[in-house]
Amino acid sequence: MSRFGTNFSTLRWRNGALELLDQRVLPMRVEYARCASADDVAGAIQSMVVRGAPAIGCAAAYGVALASLRIAGEPPAAFFEQLDAAIERLAASRPTAVNLAWALQRMRARLNTLRSATHAEIAQGLLDEAHAITAEDIRVNRVIGAHGAALLAREASVLTHCNAGALATAGHGTALGVIRSAFEQGKRIAVYANETRPFLQGARLTAWELQRDGIPVTLIADNAAGLIMRRGNIDAVIVGADRVAANGDVANKIGTYGVAVLARRHGIPFYVAAPLSTLDVATASGEDIPIEERSPDEVTGYGAEQWAAPGVAVSNPVFDITPAELVTALICERGVVHAPNRAALAKLKG
Amino acid sequence: MSRFGTNFSTLRWRNGALELLDQRVLPMRVEYARCASADDVAGAIQSMVVRGAPAIGCAAAYGVALASLRIAGEPPAAFFEQLDAAIERLAASRPTAVNLAWALQRMRARLNTLRSATHAEIAQGLLDEAHAITAEDIRVNRVIGAHGAALLAREASVLTHCNAGALATAGHGTALGVIRSAFEQGKRIAVYANETRPFLQGARLTAWELQRDGIPVTLIADNAAGLIMRRGNIDAVIVGADRVAANGDVANKIGTYGVAVLARRHGIPFYVAAPLSTLDVATASGEDIPIEERSPDEVTGYGAEQWAAPGVAVSNPVFDITPAELVTALICERGVVHAPNRAALAKLKG
Repeated sequence: MSRFGTNFSTLRWRNGALELLDQRVLPMRVEYARCASADDVAGAIQSMVVRGAPAIGCAAAYGVALASLRIAGEPPAAFFEQLDAAIERLAASRPTAVNLAWALQRMRARLNTLRSATHAEIAQGLLDEAHAITAEDIRVNRVIGAHGAALLAREASVLTHCNAGALATAGHGTALGVIRSAFEQGKRIAVYANETRPFLQGARLTAWELQRDGIPVTLIADNAAGLIMRRGNIDAVIVGADRVAANGDVANKIGTYGVAVLARRHGIPFYVAAPLSTLDVATASGEDIPIEERSPDEVTGYGAEQWAAPGVAVSNPVFDITPAELVTALICERGVVHAPNRAALAKLKG
Repeated sequence: MSRFGTNFSTLRWRNGALELLDQRVLPMRVEYARCASADDVAGAIQSMVVRGAPAIGCAAAYGVALASLRIAGEPPAAFFEQLDAAIERLAASRPTAVNLAWALQRMRARLNTLRSATHAEIAQGLLDEAHAITAEDIRVNRVIGAHGAALLAREASVLTHCNAGALATAGHGTALGVIRSAFEQGKRIAVYANETRPFLQGARLTAWELQRDGIPVTLIADNAAGLIMRRGNIDAVIVGADRVAANGDVANKIGTYGVAVLARRHGIPFYVAAPLSTLDVATASGEDIPIEERSPDEVTGYGAEQWAAPGVAVSNPVFDITPAELVTALICERGVVHAPNRAALAKLKG
């Protein structure tokens, strides 16, 4: 599992349960939430104990393994029925990131190879698969990091939005993986982190993660990104993705689209770093990607502080769509896809 | 002074002192801060008890009047020296909004007509001038409102950023004055209010102000503006301004530039509503406008809540520059200036 800085993992398997670094309380508290069932995992995904498309996929895979372990004593019909129900619950926990569906599909495929095995063997096989998905995610992120690092100059100032770091994955990160790999190569990388309202993943998670690795980071209000670009302080934008449609449109954290539009205006390359598990060729374009709407509470205040006028109507979509034409390149484990489009992406996935 | 909704004023003169509706604690508490001296007023401007370019101008004018009242018993040399010093302190309280300098210039001009008067007459003259500046601001905003309302369709969804409302002025507001005037005319106006990080003027002030007037308002994270535009939900953007340079470049709350860039991309008109006191023909372009940087605390948390990684570096510029080419029209008391440029603005001010 992921090791960054010293000894934290985004997810870890301990004593027959999944432990998740609770991202709701970072950076003020470093606590693990224990998930002993698929329902626990679905709840943790829903409430954003764990977030980030690849990390959600890994967590969901463990959720399936946990379900199979808990019901191993059931008769076959009930076993498979309950396992299916658990997978359905996990699939419904969040709508936008496709890695969740991708990981569950992998778990189903593994399950299909185990139909004639004992329940204990099935449970072990599913747990092995969850471990494999997780280990693979870290390996893939290191490859993405190496491909992406080559795009950055020896000295570069990089703007990122949200957290596409070790905390969003099993380890190393996608967008922050590129930054981390470049930094490991000795490049002088300075990061501007958008705070990323409303959930503040940039302020809370990205800043914390980069600080721990000693990578220079400056936190800004999302609103400051345009001015910072105008001042000539940004050489590249790198973000992650929650889903890349077949035509290259990118769903990512709300505000990504605005950053991409500003980057284009300033001639700054806009890179999307994501594993192929984020590429959803079954979704034709960004228009077809479901956009999750979360609680107004995320906008009206934070923790104990309420600042908005009581009773005000709120709209809180938490992802947006960046059209492919604004994406300079997609960085994935197969390499760098410049100006991604339907044909190029179809070939990648093939 | 301003009356909106029921019986609140942004500024009011009571018992020989200036009372300011404390905008740091709105909307949770409605409290007035009493300023009995120029120093009190400078402190209130600096700490954002009062904010908004026109309101700052009015407050500073009262600051000069207060100074003259407090030192009316001094001998002439000391009187004028101390008055000058008070004006200097007020001028230095915030750097970006030019209305502050404009109002102080008006107070100096009035003072110059009173050099041979008694100190008591000077003090009364300066107080009269502060009252006049304030009353004029409301009148001007109503004219701006009428001009701007004509630009909106009978049914329009308007995005605004920050608070350019009654709370940012002596009353009625500039951007919100346009919305308010259109609403008073019976137009069906729905407002999307950007929350406006970091100081949250949209969430705290704009939402509150519009609610009080019964104007439909939906609060969004600043990051959501792009998606909302992409969905076709915005017919016009209207913002205020802290300074308009001679060439039409606009300094306004941080994030305004990003909204303007998005509006251009989506073919949505981007209107700036501001009195001529905001137009600074002595500043050639936006590059010459000083951008205030405020405390990192505004970015790392709110009130008792701290959310950013402790010790993280922060950049907190609180204004940005929108180039004139992105401004569809400037709405001022002299009318609507489409595609504002140096020649058109020079004529306006002449």
